[in-house]
Amino acid sequence: MTPLDHIHIILVETSHPGNIGAAARAMKNMGLSHLRLVQPKEFLCAEAIARAAGADDLLLKAQVFNSLADSITDCSLTIGTTARPRTIAWPTLTPRTCAEKALATPGKVAIVFGRESSGLTNDELELCQFVVTISTDPQFSSLNVAAAVQILAYELRVNSEEETRATDNHLLPPPHHFLEEPATVEAIEQFYQHLEQTLIDIEFLDPQEPKQLMRRLRRLFNRIQLLNSEVNILRGILTAVRKSRR
Amino acid sequence: MTPLDHIHIILVETSHPGNIGAAARAMKNMGLSHLRLVQPKEFLCAEAIARAAGADDLLLKAQVFNSLADSITDCSLTIGTTARPRTIAWPTLTPRTCAEKALATPGKVAIVFGRESSGLTNDELELCQFVVTISTDPQFSSLNVAAAVQILAYELRVNSEEETRATDNHLLPPPHHFLEEPATVEAIEQFYQHLEQTLIDIEFLDPQEPKQLMRRLRRLFNRIQLLNSEVNILRGILTAVRKSRR
Repeated sequence: MTPLDHIHIILVETSHPGNIGAAARAMKNMGLSHLRLVQPKEFLCAEAIARAAGADDLLLKAQVFNSLADSITDCSLTIGTTARPRTIAWPTLTPRTCAEKALATPGKVAIVFGRESSGLTNDELELCQFVVTISTDPQFSSLNVAAAVQILAYELRVNSEEETRATDNHLLPPPHHFLEEPATVEAIEQFYQHLEQTLIDIEFLDPQEPKQLMRRLRRLFNRIQLLNSEVNILRGILTAVRKSRR
Repeated sequence: MTPLDHIHIILVETSHPGNIGAAARAMKNMGLSHLRLVQPKEFLCAEAIARAAGADDLLLKAQVFNSLADSITDCSLTIGTTARPRTIAWPTLTPRTCAEKALATPGKVAIVFGRESSGLTNDELELCQFVVTISTDPQFSSLNVAAAVQILAYELRVNSEEETRATDNHLLPPPHHFLEEPATVEAIEQFYQHLEQTLIDIEFLDPQEPKQLMRRLRRLFNRIQLLNSEVNILRGILTAVRKSRR
């Protein structure tokens, strides 16, 4: 069990198998081992294995999923990569703060990379609590997906080594500790469904014309990284709201 | 003239043209533009141009040399990359301290990458004032040369941006960037009062025995910097809850 063993790299609909191989190599070089693939075109072909250059064990044990949502059900923190700042406010991390946050999280952490051509969709980003952007030259900003994996994996490794050194030396305080379990994606999704139904009941949300309301609320609560006990409190409030109407 | 314009990336006897193309792309993404090649096998072929993915201008203007010594005559600082710590003591930099040193040097700086199979020879390393080593998993330490260029170019970019920001702001960057106004403490306090009164109304909170509830909820919402627009949504929901009881 290494300090990076809870990190999962998720590649969504990668079209070039060479990129998947190169991403596996980048991961293994930096000490990461869990690769998840959402609808890959191909990933156990000659090109992927050649570019993996010895990291084909990561390809062989990669888990394959039908959707991003399916691939993160057991994760307590999901961070999506995006090239451009989106129009709506989103909590944006740098690769370095992304690594700090990922290492400070006790449960499984997913770092998600989108398609070569178009990245992640807005719906996919909605599933992420945070977004990380790698700074690039604005004139030439499209990073190769394996290169992006390399940079984030590198920051994870550097950060984990800094923590190990700090713990060894008693120089720095240990990284942020959670005393409680963060809620899983599944528990949070159930809360969102409960919330949405309650907002319909109290006629705050018109299901015929929902506008951006649930999206805004997801974005708000996703930033919090809710604990299990907090999801319970919030769902208790929703139940009390619905009871008080009868 | 950018802060990275004095940096030169030198690839020594790279055998795969795809790696040269990928290195050019990594450089251009990070804002580097000067590529020098020592006895490349091939670098203006289809594979190099495909992997450059739009950075072929760097390939077209790459300078070609017969030896590493010839390629660094105009440089005031030369830093060689090496995978393993050599037997002889060598001043070894991390990618981060390499970037700091390179950016603090006013003259031309060369960062040198060796062959895919065997890196730089000891004679070539003798020409370098410093050596930089990228930390890798000791079990799987052979980095792709373009991936190594990507990591060092990334650290150069991050470091140059930090310097620019430090000069501009005399402040550290905020951890999260928002495109919208964060709410004031006053607005957030009003929200907490509104929330508390609503929880009393729906009999979720007993004012005679409040326990830790409001404290837990404050802790929850305080973890994020609520935006003004989000406080408005939350207070709108509270108003709808109270209306729905009448």
